[in-house]
Amino acid sequence: MIHNETITVATRGRGTYEVTAEVERVVSSSGVDRGVCHVFVHHTSASMLIGENADPSVRRDLDRFLARLVPDGDPLFEHVFEGPDDMPAHIRAAITATSLTIPVARGACDLGTWQGVFLWEHRTAPHRRRITVSVVGE
Amino acid sequence: MIHNETITVATRGRGTYEVTAEVERVVSSSGVDRGVCHVFVHHTSASMLIGENADPSVRRDLDRFLARLVPDGDPLFEHVFEGPDDMPAHIRAAITATSLTIPVARGACDLGTWQGVFLWEHRTAPHRRRITVSVVGE
Amino acid sequence: MIHNETITVATRGRGTYEVTAEVERVVSSSGVDRGVCHVFVHHTSASMLIGENADPSVRRDLDRFLARLVPDGDPLFEHVFEGPDDMPAHIRAAITATSLTIPVARGACDLGTWQGVFLWEHRTAPHRRRITVSVVGE
Repeated sequence: MIHNETITVATRGRGTYEVTAEVERVVSSSGVDRGVCHVFVHHTSASMLIGENADPSVRRDLDRFLARLVPDGDPLFEHVFEGPDDMPAHIRAAITATSLTIPVARGACDLGTWQGVFLWEHRTAPHRRRITVSVVGE
Repeated sequence: MIHNETITVATRGRGTYEVTAEVERVVSSSGVDRGVCHVFVHHTSASMLIGENADPSVRRDLDRFLARLVPDGDPLFEHVFEGPDDMPAHIRAAITATSLTIPVARGACDLGTWQGVFLWEHRTAPHRRRITVSVVGE
Repeated sequence: MIHNETITVATRGRGTYEVTAEVERVVSSSGVDRGVCHVFVHHTSASMLIGENADPSVRRDLDRFLARLVPDGDPLFEHVFEGPDDMPAHIRAAITATSLTIPVARGACDLGTWQGVFLWEHRTAPHRRRITVSVVGE
């Protein structure tokens, strides 16, 4: 069995947005009991993260670390077409994940106790982001 | 055909632990001859790595590089609940991989000559880590 | 249905090489209409990237950023067996992706408007790189 479904997330700019419930909803509606779930973001300036779902300070620190590692407006960059956060967004996406694979057991994502699924918006302005969830199994 | 199996790795703290043989054992017991194998770690402070399996100095250098890139005890971090290596472990996990997909051919992982599968423990203390291997194919 | 096929890319040294057309050709020849496509590189000093396919300056900046982040010949490294770009290549591979998963819809990769699939060569010398494309679906 295979089930593909696309969801859209409206971001308010840079940061992480939990989509665990939306992903679980797709897994549930797929009818798959045992298998895997793939999550793919259709953009090169946003990414997918499996991160700590309990303390939001973890995700603030993740973002703060990336902001220091890949500074906006760095004179190193040639590609500045869409502003100082354009190229940093592409780099942040390249060193994190565009796709994730999560095991499915008993009709749900078999995530660890502290794992949540997040869309990571790397641009400073709000965007609409498309994510496709694919469920494979039986 | 789909086969999910969970293995546990007891780490002795920060570093890489080869699990290629354990992953191959799951692929073999799945009965899948041709397909793909997914490897997922159920934690946000450990990750999966496909790395050089020959010279262990490569993995020592990987760890040394990450320790310099993401320093323990960095005053940047707000989340210091579990100690100076807590937030660096989450960052190290975010910029490496939570899940891997490996092709399966003739009933085994079709890895390159120098590729091994490793659990990467990012905490300094020993932990028990859960990994799920999912095999899809025929 | 599952279809595995290996393609080879001859690189001219460090940089990104678009393989979207080759991946699409495998998806098309698989006969899968709806499912997922996995892309795996059989090396530990090259990686896979889903990146901007329009303006090549984005990928030049990605490479320039990584060259500054992971300097060739860094005295930190113990593993210098194959030269000053040897260990940096392994690190660049570890913080980017060895495998990608892309949804398949209507017999083609369902990539975003600006997404292309690239092999990322991290060594400075030319290499022949093996990539396996696996298509799962119906």
